[in-house]
Amino acid sequence: MPSLHDATRGRLLFGGDYNPEQWPEEVWADDVRLMKEAGVNSATVGVFSWAKIEPRPGAREFGWLDRLLDLLHAGGIGVVLATPTSSPPPWMGALHPETLPRTEDGSVVNYGSRQHFCPSSPVYRRCAAALTEDLAARYAGHPALTMWHINNEYCTHCWCDETGAHFRRWLASRYTTLEALNEAWGTAFWSQRYDTWAEILPPRKAQYTRNPAQELDFKRFTSDALMECYTAERDIVARHTPHIPVTTNFMPLWSGQDAWAWAEQEDIVSVDIYPDPTDPRAGQYNAMLADMTRSQARGPWMVMEQAAGSVNWRGVNRPKPAGLNRLWSLQSVARGADALCYFQWRQSRQGAEKFHSGMLSHAGENGRTFGEVKRIGAELALIGAEVTGTEVPADVAVLHDWDAWWSSTQEGRPSRLVSYPELLRAWHRGLWDSGVGTEFARPEADLSAYRLVLVPQLHLLGDAAIDNLVAYVRGGGTLMCGFFTGVADVDDRIRPGGMDGRLRELFGIRTVHEWWPLDAGATVACDGFRGTLWSEELEPDGSAETVAAYREGELDGLPAVLRKGGAWYVSTLPEPGSLRDLLGRAAAEAGVRPVLEGLPSGVEAVRRGELLFLLNHGRAPAVVELPGRRLDLLTGAEADGGVELDRYGVAVLKDVPA
Amino acid sequence: MPSLHDATRGRLLFGGDYNPEQWPEEVWADDVRLMKEAGVNSATVGVFSWAKIEPRPGAREFGWLDRLLDLLHAGGIGVVLATPTSSPPPWMGALHPETLPRTEDGSVVNYGSRQHFCPSSPVYRRCAAALTEDLAARYAGHPALTMWHINNEYCTHCWCDETGAHFRRWLASRYTTLEALNEAWGTAFWSQRYDTWAEILPPRKAQYTRNPAQELDFKRFTSDALMECYTAERDIVARHTPHIPVTTNFMPLWSGQDAWAWAEQEDIVSVDIYPDPTDPRAGQYNAMLADMTRSQARGPWMVMEQAAGSVNWRGVNRPKPAGLNRLWSLQSVARGADALCYFQWRQSRQGAEKFHSGMLSHAGENGRTFGEVKRIGAELALIGAEVTGTEVPADVAVLHDWDAWWSSTQEGRPSRLVSYPELLRAWHRGLWDSGVGTEFARPEADLSAYRLVLVPQLHLLGDAAIDNLVAYVRGGGTLMCGFFTGVADVDDRIRPGGMDGRLRELFGIRTVHEWWPLDAGATVACDGFRGTLWSEELEPDGSAETVAAYREGELDGLPAVLRKGGAWYVSTLPEPGSLRDLLGRAAAEAGVRPVLEGLPSGVEAVRRGELLFLLNHGRAPAVVELPGRRLDLLTGAEADGGVELDRYGVAVLKDVPA
Amino acid sequence: MPSLHDATRGRLLFGGDYNPEQWPEEVWADDVRLMKEAGVNSATVGVFSWAKIEPRPGAREFGWLDRLLDLLHAGGIGVVLATPTSSPPPWMGALHPETLPRTEDGSVVNYGSRQHFCPSSPVYRRCAAALTEDLAARYAGHPALTMWHINNEYCTHCWCDETGAHFRRWLASRYTTLEALNEAWGTAFWSQRYDTWAEILPPRKAQYTRNPAQELDFKRFTSDALMECYTAERDIVARHTPHIPVTTNFMPLWSGQDAWAWAEQEDIVSVDIYPDPTDPRAGQYNAMLADMTRSQARGPWMVMEQAAGSVNWRGVNRPKPAGLNRLWSLQSVARGADALCYFQWRQSRQGAEKFHSGMLSHAGENGRTFGEVKRIGAELALIGAEVTGTEVPADVAVLHDWDAWWSSTQEGRPSRLVSYPELLRAWHRGLWDSGVGTEFARPEADLSAYRLVLVPQLHLLGDAAIDNLVAYVRGGGTLMCGFFTGVADVDDRIRPGGMDGRLRELFGIRTVHEWWPLDAGATVACDGFRGTLWSEELEPDGSAETVAAYREGELDGLPAVLRKGGAWYVSTLPEPGSLRDLLGRAAAEAGVRPVLEGLPSGVEAVRRGELLFLLNHGRAPAVVELPGRRLDLLTGAEADGGVELDRYGVAVLKDVPA
Repeated sequence: MPSLHDATRGRLLFGGDYNPEQWPEEVWADDVRLMKEAGVNSATVGVFSWAKIEPRPGAREFGWLDRLLDLLHAGGIGVVLATPTSSPPPWMGALHPETLPRTEDGSVVNYGSRQHFCPSSPVYRRCAAALTEDLAARYAGHPALTMWHINNEYCTHCWCDETGAHFRRWLASRYTTLEALNEAWGTAFWSQRYDTWAEILPPRKAQYTRNPAQELDFKRFTSDALMECYTAERDIVARHTPHIPVTTNFMPLWSGQDAWAWAEQEDIVSVDIYPDPTDPRAGQYNAMLADMTRSQARGPWMVMEQAAGSVNWRGVNRPKPAGLNRLWSLQSVARGADALCYFQWRQSRQGAEKFHSGMLSHAGENGRTFGEVKRIGAELALIGAEVTGTEVPADVAVLHDWDAWWSSTQEGRPSRLVSYPELLRAWHRGLWDSGVGTEFARPEADLSAYRLVLVPQLHLLGDAAIDNLVAYVRGGGTLMCGFFTGVADVDDRIRPGGMDGRLRELFGIRTVHEWWPLDAGATVACDGFRGTLWSEELEPDGSAETVAAYREGELDGLPAVLRKGGAWYVSTLPEPGSLRDLLGRAAAEAGVRPVLEGLPSGVEAVRRGELLFLLNHGRAPAVVELPGRRLDLLTGAEADGGVELDRYGVAVLKDVPA
Repeated sequence: MPSLHDATRGRLLFGGDYNPEQWPEEVWADDVRLMKEAGVNSATVGVFSWAKIEPRPGAREFGWLDRLLDLLHAGGIGVVLATPTSSPPPWMGALHPETLPRTEDGSVVNYGSRQHFCPSSPVYRRCAAALTEDLAARYAGHPALTMWHINNEYCTHCWCDETGAHFRRWLASRYTTLEALNEAWGTAFWSQRYDTWAEILPPRKAQYTRNPAQELDFKRFTSDALMECYTAERDIVARHTPHIPVTTNFMPLWSGQDAWAWAEQEDIVSVDIYPDPTDPRAGQYNAMLADMTRSQARGPWMVMEQAAGSVNWRGVNRPKPAGLNRLWSLQSVARGADALCYFQWRQSRQGAEKFHSGMLSHAGENGRTFGEVKRIGAELALIGAEVTGTEVPADVAVLHDWDAWWSSTQEGRPSRLVSYPELLRAWHRGLWDSGVGTEFARPEADLSAYRLVLVPQLHLLGDAAIDNLVAYVRGGGTLMCGFFTGVADVDDRIRPGGMDGRLRELFGIRTVHEWWPLDAGATVACDGFRGTLWSEELEPDGSAETVAAYREGELDGLPAVLRKGGAWYVSTLPEPGSLRDLLGRAAAEAGVRPVLEGLPSGVEAVRRGELLFLLNHGRAPAVVELPGRRLDLLTGAEADGGVELDRYGVAVLKDVPA
Repeated sequence: MPSLHDATRGRLLFGGDYNPEQWPEEVWADDVRLMKEAGVNSATVGVFSWAKIEPRPGAREFGWLDRLLDLLHAGGIGVVLATPTSSPPPWMGALHPETLPRTEDGSVVNYGSRQHFCPSSPVYRRCAAALTEDLAARYAGHPALTMWHINNEYCTHCWCDETGAHFRRWLASRYTTLEALNEAWGTAFWSQRYDTWAEILPPRKAQYTRNPAQELDFKRFTSDALMECYTAERDIVARHTPHIPVTTNFMPLWSGQDAWAWAEQEDIVSVDIYPDPTDPRAGQYNAMLADMTRSQARGPWMVMEQAAGSVNWRGVNRPKPAGLNRLWSLQSVARGADALCYFQWRQSRQGAEKFHSGMLSHAGENGRTFGEVKRIGAELALIGAEVTGTEVPADVAVLHDWDAWWSSTQEGRPSRLVSYPELLRAWHRGLWDSGVGTEFARPEADLSAYRLVLVPQLHLLGDAAIDNLVAYVRGGGTLMCGFFTGVADVDDRIRPGGMDGRLRELFGIRTVHEWWPLDAGATVACDGFRGTLWSEELEPDGSAETVAAYREGELDGLPAVLRKGGAWYVSTLPEPGSLRDLLGRAAAEAGVRPVLEGLPSGVEAVRRGELLFLLNHGRAPAVVELPGRRLDLLTGAEADGGVELDRYGVAVLKDVPA
């Protein structure tokens, strides 16, 4: 199986989406000149070129692409070639309106933007496959080709009749019998029993709350339906070029795709990362996405898209202050990225994203943005040989699961204030603030290599996952588990007692009397901290230690945090500093150590392979005391005893043998 | 005519919705065991069983229901048998899509939830009638049967073409001629004149504000259309069991059903009550719903649904703290309920309401929730014989009317901040805080038995109602009337002068110059209080006393509260304490006395029949000084001179003859 | 060409919409009596009379209108006769559903309100033309007729298939070739290239951001499509009555109509003005609308609608305090209005606008509102002869353009907080607070008569406009230009460098590095003021003076306000007082003087012809020191040295020769 290594070959990839169809061909030569000036070695081509390649049904216009790939190759720039199937040309929607998605309330999602295809549409799939076939056949042997990029940010949900038929086939395959489906969906409630398969619909607009198990299965189905689109194209290109790795770019923390399952179908895991420059916690967010994507990739991964400056889809879109693009880029490398790409090379003058930044902004080659891009390109070249392909160590795993996420979003739940991704962020923040290496893992994964396993929240947990957690603790591991976990089985059926019995025994809980979600902004006093968002009325069974009790309100005196040996249960969300301390206590007991002790506030230290990355997320300079001699690969200077970091400064240090 | 008495037979009914189709039959025996343990004597069965009874068109699966009723009967538990017509099986929507409702903008409301039927659909009505017929025939003679429960929470509005045809028939019946309709709707404005009946549509999505009279009639029509569904099923069951009382459960303060009209069609008036446990005024809200439902029932009434713990449809759903379920349950009994039931007996493990509490929660028989349920069951048994069927005295009536409510919600009104139900709550609060017995009445009702009549707001008032109010005051009654009342006639046509002339004369108002709604959060100074929400530029005619004048702004010096003999007009909404004092002043003058004087804050006293209920809504214990000897039926203890009430404590006192 | 002069004939027109079809004919005589009492000399008739004139297809019921016009004429009241085409009768939607508009998501906009016609519908156009033809033929010679009023507040957008076909015809006319369209729309991005004209749709609901150039053209098209409806009817009436002026009433600052283009097609420019009486800046807003409409009219203009009291479409609708109707009415006259009309004469008792005030309110002829109307009518008669037809001088022009406005509203822009009309208000406020006479102009207009030209923001600027601005400055003019101006060309294509090179040279800017929009509520320190909403990272070219620099944040030290000779560039929005001072500085240097110096706060002075209007917008009385002797035309009193103005007081002064 090919891998990212086949594309990097010892260099860090640097480049971005390149959409030259927006420009006259005379601009292309200038593009190559400036790419070389910026150290760009990779260009992603063809992402939105369907209408240019196939301007009318069955046509093939490859000449421009031939010229483009030759030009890039001549400039020493490798090509990530995309199947342009995420944005069908207008003729498809005009000739085949049934390829257009429909929303929950039945209205049509028209062409005129992008991603306007029903993933279940046979016409769409047939046209996409035919084009992919011809594209792969034509460029299989092109020397510039380094990677295949299938489609783009798969995300389209559809509730049309074709989708309905596909959903029923998927359900028939999952459940075999209608009886099993009725059982799994609990259709006895509200008279929803299906008597024939044909009655089953996608969860469309309804009078009141819909069936949560139906909604859960529809989310599973849509992720699978989109993945079928992906694998169909992947199989075509892989047949032509078995040696070229294949990827599709994720949107991170996007609920529409089960990234664990998708990653297994990819040679390279790539992701589009757009932290908000105005978010004071954006550095940790960037770190979390890196940790998550690296975990999905089980090794080096790829930033397929990031922004050199501003994006254009927030309410207010701020550019990146000087140095921030470089800081976050090197942070991604520190946390395992072997490829750093942008959307897009040259900022568009027209179209829906003309206010989304490019490496080459409207200000052009004299713009501040391009200046920073050039610096990054040069620095990546300096460190590439030392860093590419190396591993990032981690003793801690955060468990993360799409089924649990999906089930957490259902209508009619105890609190709409509880957000699964926000819980992941909150717990990861505790680890990042503690400076310990972190990975993400599925609940069923082999956890034996980790000293500490964290569960911010897994509302839905299958039997195998529960047994896995119990076995992990029995085997000496330390598990800390957040509230409202282990509540439902794989069908989102509440487990007797409101929490699985094995987990209750693990944590020393006799009875879960009631869940007590907190109002917006409310907190509850506990021993030593204040809880937020949630609390629980728990009756311990006497076998656990009450680490902290509630100290006000209806739960006054009841346990907030329980601990039974290596198993901790945290029935609220402590405020950030307190959660950090709680995680830190468990980590210390489990023998987890930070990368570096005593770092100044805002400075992050990451070890990757032989290298130590120091990253200053603060706007003030900082000094890191560091015994021993080290070479800073970026400056070539030697650090002896301490490293000075400017605002947003980075050092990439290598031990100098004494 | 049968009545609630035929179901209670001297006991207070206690129980809840029981949906055993969600559970294997082996659980049923356990259910009966625990019901008996909890003092449950009534189970509501079949509410959502359509798909189980008729899994495909025309099928009848009654065997499970036979076994269930036999089992309950053997356990001494009476059965409230529901027609399961509120949630048609999927086959109906699949085979007959025209039974599905359509929204104002024409999109389909699908099956997959509940209540997805167009009330005007002949197919739906035919299927519902056929099933009701068979159900009634089969169980007419079953010894467990105590009551019929038709459908569930009728609430579905529909704008489809079938509805349009039905709406036209309803209009033809109301107006006879198109000319009369054009006149009533004021279609001369904006060129809306209808030339043929066929042109008339339900008020669908439009470019701008719609015709308010059309919207008013559509609300009247929908209430009537739903009531036709109800009476059709009622007539069927009544034919089979003339001796068994029939009900359908209201959502309280729900604008979709004119509950006055519906109540006339019921043997028992029942209601579903879900105060928010986090609302500090929830106790008064519960009292208001009780007063309103008792008034509709003209005597004892039924809580068809309440929650033992949390609901699942708010943003944040808190359970009930210990004691609150009991407090509100006994409060309902104090205010006239002879039946206390819950949704639902056993909390669901699956489906859209699995996070809605049950009497038997996920925590099961050892849970705190079930413990409190058992206590309530035992206590109801203690007081049942003394309380069932007795009356609750009241000297005050609050006028309430659906036409007025509906007309108050129209687009393009002076202030969208004014909420009719909030005005009802505000005025009822003044009475509750004063501790006086209260009922609700229609504006056309015989008011002669009341010492005081209050009108929080009746924007629309028909001629008979106006004459009724004038006659009431002329007959010596005291009337206090809130702002923006008597403005429109039955067609929502503004009366000349902006307020009916009879009312202006009654209150001593020469001219209503302008309405001056207040901005959100704004108040206006008046003599002795601050007004909220609204003010009016009134010119008195010299015959009235200015009780309080505006003391700032554009209306400085003009009357805010006018009084002419027994007729008071309050042109703003005084802040709560001031409204209480104003109502108290009028009440005192009218000879209205509180149930008990000098109660501690938060303690409610209600007299029902021979009994005195004391209810502590506070979280701190309270002591009520009470001369004379009384027996507390709940404890069997004798109170001599004073009663101690714990947090959420209740005493049910009976005089001990000296 | 006829003009407003042909209708006024030396008087100020005073009156309003008169919809007598809402009332029995016996009321009409009373209306005329009261009109005469109020000095009304103009009634607008027929605006919503389609269903009354043509109750079924092809019918003509003119008798009532004959009687009405005769009655008005007998009373000395002129008639503004409307084509009633803005609200088709129900029969049209019922018989021809394809005349009903469809929204972006495809749902139907039904009849039952008003303005429910697709402007591209041939059936609608045919019926409207036939009715207009007959109306014009019948009343061409009626002596009461003074003006034609076509339709009413054209505003309906439609996305239906008929609109699609019309849009394609419009596009074919604009671009001739598909290639040119693809180029102009930048369809190379996101694979949106159109291969046949038939594929092009209106910008309907899509998966993600739509093409901004398509949206821009759709806005241009809709304004043109509506204008075709207008001109078709105008041509009919003009054929019958070439001597009678024609208008259609604008909604001011309404983005749906390019009022510059429309005004060129009108004999009279009229507008509907509804400032919010609770807005403390409403006086300036009224002034801005007057200045804008006068500029479109190039002279005297008409208030077609204003409210005597409250409107009914805000969340909270407050009436006008005593004097405010008069103040704003005379302010409009001061700023060039020769006609002051209201919606509507007699307040409706029924229909969607029964809570919208009338000249004759629900309170009737004894109401305060009618009292003030009578006073205004009398005063207009006093000053009419002196004021009608005279000019309002102005040295300052504010540039305003619909293409720029439309392009500023696109999805995916740097900041959704930036509102084009709010920027116009902010800059006009600076001028109003400075008391200088102001007009509006198109960017391509001849600017040579102005001493100062302001550009609050023109994101899109065509080449001719840019050359015009450059030439204006080169010719000695002073130009002050707000942020994000000159960014895009006529196709909304970003100009190289992010700002047109000619403008960069004009302002002395070498590079626009990045736009830095500010978060909601955030400000940025600059030398001497705080900026709001926006900032820019600019690199000057050394030829300009930095008037003020940013003094914090990422742009610390960079220029905020640049100036190169007569060309100023303001890269943020200074807070109101600071913007006023900045404008004042440029104005003073340019030789612009206020109408009067040293006015008390809240007092506005406007010169029109020979008259000086003093208007007190404050709630406290004010005294204006004024050397020389003047006659107040309203009171007949002579002012010698000073004028006292009551709350909302007005003086209309004429020099008394010494």
